[in-house]
Amino acid sequence: MSHCLLLSGGLDSTTVAAWIRDRYPDEPVSAYTFLYGQKHAVELQAARAVAKAFGMEHFVIDLPPIRGSALTDSDQPLPEQRDLASLTGVAPSYVPARNLLFIAHMASIRDAVGPGRLWLGVHHDDYTGYPDCRPQFIEAADQAVRLGTRYSLCVEAPFVDWSKAAIIRWGLDHAVPYELTHSCYQGRVPACGVCDTCQARLQAFAAVGAVDPIAYETR
Amino acid sequence: MSHCLLLSGGLDSTTVAAWIRDRYPDEPVSAYTFLYGQKHAVELQAARAVAKAFGMEHFVIDLPPIRGSALTDSDQPLPEQRDLASLTGVAPSYVPARNLLFIAHMASIRDAVGPGRLWLGVHHDDYTGYPDCRPQFIEAADQAVRLGTRYSLCVEAPFVDWSKAAIIRWGLDHAVPYELTHSCYQGRVPACGVCDTCQARLQAFAAVGAVDPIAYETR
Repeated sequence: MSHCLLLSGGLDSTTVAAWIRDRYPDEPVSAYTFLYGQKHAVELQAARAVAKAFGMEHFVIDLPPIRGSALTDSDQPLPEQRDLASLTGVAPSYVPARNLLFIAHMASIRDAVGPGRLWLGVHHDDYTGYPDCRPQFIEAADQAVRLGTRYSLCVEAPFVDWSKAAIIRWGLDHAVPYELTHSCYQGRVPACGVCDTCQARLQAFAAVGAVDPIAYETR
Repeated sequence: MSHCLLLSGGLDSTTVAAWIRDRYPDEPVSAYTFLYGQKHAVELQAARAVAKAFGMEHFVIDLPPIRGSALTDSDQPLPEQRDLASLTGVAPSYVPARNLLFIAHMASIRDAVGPGRLWLGVHHDDYTGYPDCRPQFIEAADQAVRLGTRYSLCVEAPFVDWSKAAIIRWGLDHAVPYELTHSCYQGRVPACGVCDTCQARLQAFAAVGAVDPIAYETR
């Protein structure tokens, strides 16, 4: 079986890379990073470094820009210093139908060749803010991909019910190179430490009693 | 409600344009045509003419080329003069995960703005050869789009259980401008008349006792 990994270069998808290597050590894995007009395109460098560290073939797919998100629109600022636990509704950083788009492109590329699994790092903490990270969506997308492709491809999201802290705990036990990853939505290196995703990352490391190995501006 | 039409410029999607206008005469419709490396990119001209005839806003989306199809790969010839009724298995002209890709892109564009329906012209005659034209796929894609978008978009495929002949019968009753459409997979104008899609079109017009108004080389 062949594996296609949606690799943003962030913490979650990098842990999926380790998960696939752990479960299917001898099977080929291709990693895909998408450019879609995101402000934090610097994550591409992280994705390259992660793919290299895992010895995975890496492909960069350049899509038409996606609109309607604080991650892509210059007139929509990224929120900072919010109390993540109190948030409701769709997040400003939700990117319209992004996961469906990425799944569809990976399916199209893989289905030209042969059977395969399409891997995503979506997880429980994203339920509220991102409709395309909910398990119901993942199940429906899996069905659509199974039914709509020649080789009945499937979608795998091993962390869909996990918290970010649980992902990190597993990752630290499996020597995931978190120092190579990039999460900051501001696209800063060192990371800003105050955008939603920097905060979520810092809080998750704190929850497992570990230190995030990447550099932050605000420390 | 707003409507997004996947408009190839072919017979089926042009009839969907008329269907939407018939059912929702006062609601805005945007038509989307995708370039994905197809040999018959001449269909773009037809799509432009159809959108203009219906007074629909028209957008052309340029995607990375899709591989693994006789419609896109230069080393895969398009079959000619086949007995369509006897065909089994996935068609050489199947384009990997094409409908999922198109649905995902329309969903991404529409979900940035507000609620909407995404319309496709898939139909019964394509069941066998195209996994992404089956009603089960359309249902799953509809679920994925409903669950994975901010505005719970939906997928509509009014002809999914219809034959091409039934589509033409309805279209002729509703003055669909079939003279503007283009179907030939060879991308020829006049149409080749011998590729699978030219044959399917000619046979469907014959089945309803009508004459196809476009020009063919072989007549």
